[in-house]
Amino acid sequence: MTITTAEAIEILGTIAFAISGSFAAMQKRLDPFGVLIIAFVTSIGGGTVRDLLLGDTPVAWMRDVNYCLLILVTSLLTIFFKKNIKRFKVTLFIFDSLGLGLFTMLGLQKGINFGLDPGMCVALGTITGCFGGIIRDTLLNAIPLIFRQEIYATACILGGVLYFGLLEMNMKPDFAKVSVIGFIFLLRIVVVRYKLALPKFGY
Amino acid sequence: MTITTAEAIEILGTIAFAISGSFAAMQKRLDPFGVLIIAFVTSIGGGTVRDLLLGDTPVAWMRDVNYCLLILVTSLLTIFFKKNIKRFKVTLFIFDSLGLGLFTMLGLQKGINFGLDPGMCVALGTITGCFGGIIRDTLLNAIPLIFRQEIYATACILGGVLYFGLLEMNMKPDFAKVSVIGFIFLLRIVVVRYKLALPKFGY
Amino acid sequence: MTITTAEAIEILGTIAFAISGSFAAMQKRLDPFGVLIIAFVTSIGGGTVRDLLLGDTPVAWMRDVNYCLLILVTSLLTIFFKKNIKRFKVTLFIFDSLGLGLFTMLGLQKGINFGLDPGMCVALGTITGCFGGIIRDTLLNAIPLIFRQEIYATACILGGVLYFGLLEMNMKPDFAKVSVIGFIFLLRIVVVRYKLALPKFGY
Repeated sequence: MTITTAEAIEILGTIAFAISGSFAAMQKRLDPFGVLIIAFVTSIGGGTVRDLLLGDTPVAWMRDVNYCLLILVTSLLTIFFKKNIKRFKVTLFIFDSLGLGLFTMLGLQKGINFGLDPGMCVALGTITGCFGGIIRDTLLNAIPLIFRQEIYATACILGGVLYFGLLEMNMKPDFAKVSVIGFIFLLRIVVVRYKLALPKFGY
Repeated sequence: MTITTAEAIEILGTIAFAISGSFAAMQKRLDPFGVLIIAFVTSIGGGTVRDLLLGDTPVAWMRDVNYCLLILVTSLLTIFFKKNIKRFKVTLFIFDSLGLGLFTMLGLQKGINFGLDPGMCVALGTITGCFGGIIRDTLLNAIPLIFRQEIYATACILGGVLYFGLLEMNMKPDFAKVSVIGFIFLLRIVVVRYKLALPKFGY
Repeated sequence: MTITTAEAIEILGTIAFAISGSFAAMQKRLDPFGVLIIAFVTSIGGGTVRDLLLGDTPVAWMRDVNYCLLILVTSLLTIFFKKNIKRFKVTLFIFDSLGLGLFTMLGLQKGINFGLDPGMCVALGTITGCFGGIIRDTLLNAIPLIFRQEIYATACILGGVLYFGLLEMNMKPDFAKVSVIGFIFLLRIVVVRYKLALPKFGY
């Protein structure tokens, strides 16, 4: 079995989202089952909403049991080694940002394959990247972080626009993809590192 | 390009829901991206849930980019002119009620087109009219207003029942549609104006 | 009209979930419309999510108006006779657990009919059994009980695994179904009776 670069990053992204979901759930003191559910939802939420909106059913995770097993193992490992992983917060953040980049790219490409308008493809990429976190936070009863902090989803949107710009300039699709994933990844890192944020409203 | 009456009211309804969503999000002090997301969700939530339940995918807003642009522009204008629009609270409420009437009618008609039972058509109309607000409030972490105040959705249900009653009496469909939209619109205005509500429970 | 055993238990399960939803909504002091909506969502939520994930649309409750009428009548009766029903808390809990068993079984069987992997069938059964309660609690703005108390969903997962084990041992499908329903039912009763729970996390 050979694994393509895209599959490798998708696996890493799935792992990272599963870890992020597990941590969020453990902070709310859920039992192990709740932790597994939240890890699962964080990892597959974005792709599920994407497939539902497109009508591409049964949704992706139902057709490939391997991602479910991957999430299960990742979440169990996070529960048992939580103290050790806590020290690798930066590692986690990096994987999470990488996952965001790749999942956005997967959504963009799926929209193009379905012949959607470029604006809709960007929306689909953003949904694929961000929705797992939104569902996680909604289930955990908090205003989704995405609405509070960082320009998380803004990175996905800008990445999507960049992708169509690069294709317009006749860049090879594979190069454009890697560029966009790197762009979203780096933008997120820079924004969080320098605590940049969009202005808020006060009344 | 000519615009039919139905399209005109749908555009007005979309605008009104986008404004209502923007205000709700700004009151929760979300950043501009969050405001756009909530405006979008409020405007397209009802139709999206309707299309998902029917299996009519890709969902409507993915097939017509114009409504997305309309929501984007409306939400940006609301953000920039928020003080001026605040004075037009009554205007907003009127548009919101009009939108409720039309979106309910669109859902009813779509259920009829899919050959559903009349009771299911009424449910579909109610979902189309109300679900945007439910998702908005859930994301903003409040018990949906629909469960707290006014007989919002009750108006949609009564309107749906009225529509089938009028068709039964051989009223022309177009007349029946306008009557139902007007009925939901006026019922909502009267209920809010005179602070009517269904009885609540106490334990 | 003859009713099969499965249909009979499904009807009982629908009734029980409708009652449980009505009580949850009345405790949050929603108006009668809100109570109906929550009762409806609790009863049909699991099956709806299952059908959406599979792409089996229009979803089940839109194709059979009888279950909607059953929920409506049950919820109205719960509202009017709430004091009397409160005394039958144990009865309610028993019906709820029976419903959980059957709905899990229905989801399992539907997954098998769609040719899904056994692991996915177990997931689908669990979703069918549990999602109504998750949506109910999310709408009522609480961390879903499923993440806090009891090994509710764990019972569904164990039941699903048991079902495939029994089929593997060449048990007749009908016997296996009844066994699994009984297993989930009894496991839930025992867990709640003796206040068993999975361990929680503290930081």
